[in-house]
Amino acid sequence: MPVSIGVLKEIISLILNGKSPPEIISKLQLSLPKNKPLSHSIPFETSLEKTVIDKRIEILKKQGINLNYVTEKKKIENFKQYEGNIENFVGFAKVPIGVIGPLRINGIYANGDFYVPLATTEGSLVASYNRGAKIISYSGGARVMCLTERLSRAPGFRFANLIEVGEFLIWIVSKFDKFKRIVKTTTKHGRLEDMSTTIEGNLVILNFEYTTGDASGQNIVTIATDKICKYIVKNSPIKPKIWFIESNLSGDKKATSMSYLFVRGKKVTAEVVVPREYSIRMLHAKPEIIMDYYKMSVIGAVQSGSLGTQGHYANGLAGIFIACGQDVACVSEAAIGITRIDITENGDLYFSVTIPNLIIGTVGGGTALPTQKECLKMLGCSGNHKAKIFAEICAATLLGGEISIIGAIASGEFTEAHKKYGRKLK
Amino acid sequence: MPVSIGVLKEIISLILNGKSPPEIISKLQLSLPKNKPLSHSIPFETSLEKTVIDKRIEILKKQGINLNYVTEKKKIENFKQYEGNIENFVGFAKVPIGVIGPLRINGIYANGDFYVPLATTEGSLVASYNRGAKIISYSGGARVMCLTERLSRAPGFRFANLIEVGEFLIWIVSKFDKFKRIVKTTTKHGRLEDMSTTIEGNLVILNFEYTTGDASGQNIVTIATDKICKYIVKNSPIKPKIWFIESNLSGDKKATSMSYLFVRGKKVTAEVVVPREYSIRMLHAKPEIIMDYYKMSVIGAVQSGSLGTQGHYANGLAGIFIACGQDVACVSEAAIGITRIDITENGDLYFSVTIPNLIIGTVGGGTALPTQKECLKMLGCSGNHKAKIFAEICAATLLGGEISIIGAIASGEFTEAHKKYGRKLK
Amino acid sequence: MPVSIGVLKEIISLILNGKSPPEIISKLQLSLPKNKPLSHSIPFETSLEKTVIDKRIEILKKQGINLNYVTEKKKIENFKQYEGNIENFVGFAKVPIGVIGPLRINGIYANGDFYVPLATTEGSLVASYNRGAKIISYSGGARVMCLTERLSRAPGFRFANLIEVGEFLIWIVSKFDKFKRIVKTTTKHGRLEDMSTTIEGNLVILNFEYTTGDASGQNIVTIATDKICKYIVKNSPIKPKIWFIESNLSGDKKATSMSYLFVRGKKVTAEVVVPREYSIRMLHAKPEIIMDYYKMSVIGAVQSGSLGTQGHYANGLAGIFIACGQDVACVSEAAIGITRIDITENGDLYFSVTIPNLIIGTVGGGTALPTQKECLKMLGCSGNHKAKIFAEICAATLLGGEISIIGAIASGEFTEAHKKYGRKLK
Amino acid sequence: MPVSIGVLKEIISLILNGKSPPEIISKLQLSLPKNKPLSHSIPFETSLEKTVIDKRIEILKKQGINLNYVTEKKKIENFKQYEGNIENFVGFAKVPIGVIGPLRINGIYANGDFYVPLATTEGSLVASYNRGAKIISYSGGARVMCLTERLSRAPGFRFANLIEVGEFLIWIVSKFDKFKRIVKTTTKHGRLEDMSTTIEGNLVILNFEYTTGDASGQNIVTIATDKICKYIVKNSPIKPKIWFIESNLSGDKKATSMSYLFVRGKKVTAEVVVPREYSIRMLHAKPEIIMDYYKMSVIGAVQSGSLGTQGHYANGLAGIFIACGQDVACVSEAAIGITRIDITENGDLYFSVTIPNLIIGTVGGGTALPTQKECLKMLGCSGNHKAKIFAEICAATLLGGEISIIGAIASGEFTEAHKKYGRKLK
Repeated sequence: MPVSIGVLKEIISLILNGKSPPEIISKLQLSLPKNKPLSHSIPFETSLEKTVIDKRIEILKKQGINLNYVTEKKKIENFKQYEGNIENFVGFAKVPIGVIGPLRINGIYANGDFYVPLATTEGSLVASYNRGAKIISYSGGARVMCLTERLSRAPGFRFANLIEVGEFLIWIVSKFDKFKRIVKTTTKHGRLEDMSTTIEGNLVILNFEYTTGDASGQNIVTIATDKICKYIVKNSPIKPKIWFIESNLSGDKKATSMSYLFVRGKKVTAEVVVPREYSIRMLHAKPEIIMDYYKMSVIGAVQSGSLGTQGHYANGLAGIFIACGQDVACVSEAAIGITRIDITENGDLYFSVTIPNLIIGTVGGGTALPTQKECLKMLGCSGNHKAKIFAEICAATLLGGEISIIGAIASGEFTEAHKKYGRKLK
Repeated sequence: MPVSIGVLKEIISLILNGKSPPEIISKLQLSLPKNKPLSHSIPFETSLEKTVIDKRIEILKKQGINLNYVTEKKKIENFKQYEGNIENFVGFAKVPIGVIGPLRINGIYANGDFYVPLATTEGSLVASYNRGAKIISYSGGARVMCLTERLSRAPGFRFANLIEVGEFLIWIVSKFDKFKRIVKTTTKHGRLEDMSTTIEGNLVILNFEYTTGDASGQNIVTIATDKICKYIVKNSPIKPKIWFIESNLSGDKKATSMSYLFVRGKKVTAEVVVPREYSIRMLHAKPEIIMDYYKMSVIGAVQSGSLGTQGHYANGLAGIFIACGQDVACVSEAAIGITRIDITENGDLYFSVTIPNLIIGTVGGGTALPTQKECLKMLGCSGNHKAKIFAEICAATLLGGEISIIGAIASGEFTEAHKKYGRKLK
Repeated sequence: MPVSIGVLKEIISLILNGKSPPEIISKLQLSLPKNKPLSHSIPFETSLEKTVIDKRIEILKKQGINLNYVTEKKKIENFKQYEGNIENFVGFAKVPIGVIGPLRINGIYANGDFYVPLATTEGSLVASYNRGAKIISYSGGARVMCLTERLSRAPGFRFANLIEVGEFLIWIVSKFDKFKRIVKTTTKHGRLEDMSTTIEGNLVILNFEYTTGDASGQNIVTIATDKICKYIVKNSPIKPKIWFIESNLSGDKKATSMSYLFVRGKKVTAEVVVPREYSIRMLHAKPEIIMDYYKMSVIGAVQSGSLGTQGHYANGLAGIFIACGQDVACVSEAAIGITRIDITENGDLYFSVTIPNLIIGTVGGGTALPTQKECLKMLGCSGNHKAKIFAEICAATLLGGEISIIGAIASGEFTEAHKKYGRKLK
Repeated sequence: MPVSIGVLKEIISLILNGKSPPEIISKLQLSLPKNKPLSHSIPFETSLEKTVIDKRIEILKKQGINLNYVTEKKKIENFKQYEGNIENFVGFAKVPIGVIGPLRINGIYANGDFYVPLATTEGSLVASYNRGAKIISYSGGARVMCLTERLSRAPGFRFANLIEVGEFLIWIVSKFDKFKRIVKTTTKHGRLEDMSTTIEGNLVILNFEYTTGDASGQNIVTIATDKICKYIVKNSPIKPKIWFIESNLSGDKKATSMSYLFVRGKKVTAEVVVPREYSIRMLHAKPEIIMDYYKMSVIGAVQSGSLGTQGHYANGLAGIFIACGQDVACVSEAAIGITRIDITENGDLYFSVTIPNLIIGTVGGGTALPTQKECLKMLGCSGNHKAKIFAEICAATLLGGEISIIGAIASGEFTEAHKKYGRKLK
């Protein structure tokens, strides 16, 4: 196939795996029966009375969700399990977790009603995301598509001059299959998918793009690329003057404008149509006001030089990432995306979010630690074959957060909400 | 004074507060005696044996640092104290904390040897920052300047046309003092410092800039701006068609290119000169190799469309923010900056970091919660009059992180470090 | 006044110049009587028959516009007048000029019906801008506001360390008035308006902001800043290790994200309401389709990482700049802005453009050369006290270009227009 | 070949065309004999005396360069030849041209000593580029590589929801070959090379990437894409609600951050090593000072939010584009790139420029018009099979411009040069 189909790769992989278009379409048409009743709702409460908390935990338990470490019923005794996660260990930061839901999702991978844990110390954050989740669920659920996934390392090689650059390029063109084989010797989870070059004077940056299975994958791609580089330096007929494993092009833990043009982590998009009456009743604003605010918010974002245009992805992401043992520093790159609103022909509200750089994993990192694993289990996302489900849940959660904050600002309730739920400074 | 002196405002405020230039200069010349011996070092260990952990806690105790909640010696019984921090509470995410240090800082506000808590589940992060802190301290400490501070809200007002825009502008010009008085009625900590306008067609965005004392301040500026807006809408001779409290221009929880041009939170810069021999002995690379890598990393960052050019501020920030009860979502805006390296005339290495958007607080938010407060106390930064000290500690910590990662990549040890300290995928 | 009122400065200057608010408002309410008949239209023609061209020139003549050099009736004999404009001179690039109009403008500075010369070799460009101008004029004219003006130079000073940086800052704070006086000795047209600092490690960048009268002003600010710098280096109690006249922060001839946050050149905004029936009859599309396209175009722009979001400002700017003796390289920084569309309550189309960085002049540069001066005269913009008028004409012209291209794409005629007017490749 | 080799495509095409690696390498090793004497230099003069001008024209004539229309020896009588280039024609903008050179180039496509025409009204521009060209030539010439070429159109299709998006994607995946055949029916010069998709909610943007032979190609890709879109809309099993030929993603005439990540037009890189003694003698600054300035200029650019980091590409590009009948509006997208400087082991200066978006053509547009064609002929670049040669000459010219301006700023002569050559304001 001479065409690099960009983000279509995901769907192609379904096709190549022998699925017929009807099968794929039925998958896309999503599986939740329209009239399936919603799972039991968690009554929204700010109260911190023990009885209220216990009731909430009870509801979750009925859904098969057990929180022994999170609730401190079980004490963490075995610190050895933190090996590979921390050095110079002294104890724990305890970040309170609030649960939102049920959040109904009709995704390619995630299907059902979910309860989502958010760890935060910022009052009103959970309230806002919970309201959004409720509106989504009442509106029939979020449609979500995890579109594609990638992670890259970008080593740089500096040569004496352009002549050497040319010779190096000619040599390296034919080595892609060799590099794939090298990668296989270093990882079971990762696979080299693509390689591209960026030439700038006598500097050649190779961008190696991988898939990393259910791990977020930074270590996988580092180790694999290191081995490729060592092969290159040993075997290239023309030696670089200097080379480094990362030229700082990959965007690792940085906000870069590559976000929309390449993919880091998973690219996911989610949408929901909120009926006009829910807009008025639950967001306290007509769709037209919401739309007015949306249009202003885009102009504000553009003038601020924002990467993408959205409300507060960072809030939801930080909440999920801390709860679920993700690499929280990745909020810096994942909290970029596009929120879009439109009014449908029927006068309802169309909302969508697109998150191009969702760096997450369900194995590796902090995912197997006591409270973190319980939170992933709450989502049904602990372990292998769960990363795309988790990605779709994250996207649907952010969709809820956007609906809620935009509604709050548009209806003029934003300040009141923060007064009500936020911590008072004395 | 007819000139808006930008980031000089901080120093001006010293002058206006009656400090003489010699006093200010002496403050700038920093206070640590050069030969003061370094505080007791925490032996670096990955071991999670209880005895090792206890020894570490013991060392900290000798420095006056008590960790009762972090170490779970004390159990959190009173959930009521989480009021204003969380809704739908079920329990805690427990994020392991590693301590680095001592990190010697010669700042305008922070002076001394500090132990810094980092909460993370990413192996090798603490190791890397610890190495950087050690190198800084051996090199005589980091010089740090907290330059200025601001937080803004940017409400938007849409009018019928440019004629109305003009009339509105004429009216509002004279209202700044009134707005300052309005703000005073809403907050003790915050103060309106400046107001500017951005006109785009019939849309006027007012950008209100505040100082917020020792709080990170998002709620303060929201409540104050809301009251100003309500005054405007009531009293303006020309009424906006629509208005909203936030036009999305303020950059709240977003990566925007405003970072270097305005300030959100605190702007801090930190520097250290690492002697040539420490570069070779501790970073295992000559200054020239470090410099070669630095130059490549800038070109990589520019080509990636990165906002700023740095290595991994997000790692250190996420670690400190989780440990110290900060708003972790602000990593999305704070993790932008410039790391710079140069070789001095003597062949030593000059390192600096500049973080223009450090959103932090020592009161409000999660700062008074059990483990969070202990971590702030470890830094001597709990409560009022501490925010600038905390900001300088953050900057010095990031400086250490940059030194360490750049050294690791330049010396070719980056991959090995991650293999050694990282969690193994099975 | 303790507040730096940003882009309000323009209006403030009116107030400070003793104008009463009613006077200013009447100025804002603009001067063209609503029913004034439109100046004679130039019949649109692609024909290049001599008789057709002559007829067009005749129409312009009746409006008092004489084109002797542009039409080559007069030959340029005196090459000496090109002194200061060109070195190693051999002759001329002859770029064909098409004229659009009349373009009705109700600006603060520009008022009346204008014929605008566009020099280009790209077929369909003049046709498109002409269509837009016609639609604006039929809709009652463009409302335009030249909001403010600035030009900056940003010298950089590197010191040994932060202590020296602090001492330098303390010294320089008090020197602003001195710098203003220095500037006065170098220029009659330019005035130092503001100074700000950007500190990054041991590097201090001073950003000097000037107004430059009717000149675009790059040379003025260079010469003035150079003299300030020499004063600084001679008199500062603390000497910089190195310093340079321009740190590359000023954005001179570059696309930078400072566009919306500071002003380079003039900031101008323009708007028009196009009645629904003209949308249908002249743009061949209902407002709703135009709006649909507009919304898509913003999302496309955001995903491309565009600075601002607009259609093709660069086309109109290049056309005017070449015709009118402007610095054409400034297209790189001026062609950034925001085009906005909305549907009014009556179902009409609201269009606006905002150009924050319009670098233009009516004296200096190429403005006094034979064909260039004739083109500026066609606009009534040759010489002193004309720059703001010229800026408003530029903005209204770009507004027309945006209306036309957006209409063409929305109605599906974009391709046909290029087939019809474009040069055919054989 | 399963790998999309990014910018390697160019070299691969050589390989696929049957060239052996030794042949390619010899091509890369460039063809000018080291000791070939430099073509006759044009004496640099600001004088506008007729005798001086005539002497200059004489020198060019001896090199086989005839300038009849540029020098106005021949009058343009036939206006019909401007058909397809202009509407509402009234006459000409006459922009003075200065010639620089000889500029020695060792490129893959361009080889030899070139005289480059620059049309401008900005004094000192030609002087500066001429100085840079001279330094390059004395240093043995610029090495240049035209790496790859592309032009895109990006139509957008909005569907009802994600289910329809999925069905559309499944259908379109298999149509790439069909699209290639459709393109062939619309153009001889253009070829569809790649297609990718960008999904954002219910919006699908297809990015069609073409090569366009020696034309700059905007019309080619518009017409071809229009036909593809009409096929899609007619044949897709799932119909878009709305669609438009350009979603504003392609970056046409805009500064976008896609510059380094995709290619628009041609990507070219050029380098030269300037011996230490020439740095001192001709730039009047030691390499170390040049390097100090370069480092500061990168930090300045990063802080300004510049796309790329360079000095003044826009100046040289505008000069060449006006002279040579290019689309001058494309300066807005082409004037983005990276200039890099380093000191070699021998203490010499390494300079490189990389221009990722050079939109140029040697057929179509204004390239066949009288003065424009003469200027292209001066470069040996008129007509087919010349576009890559032209691209390499542009890059080498910009390299000269960068060397000269950086030298001027570093040596402190920048202001003096503008005083000397610039137009004086009275």
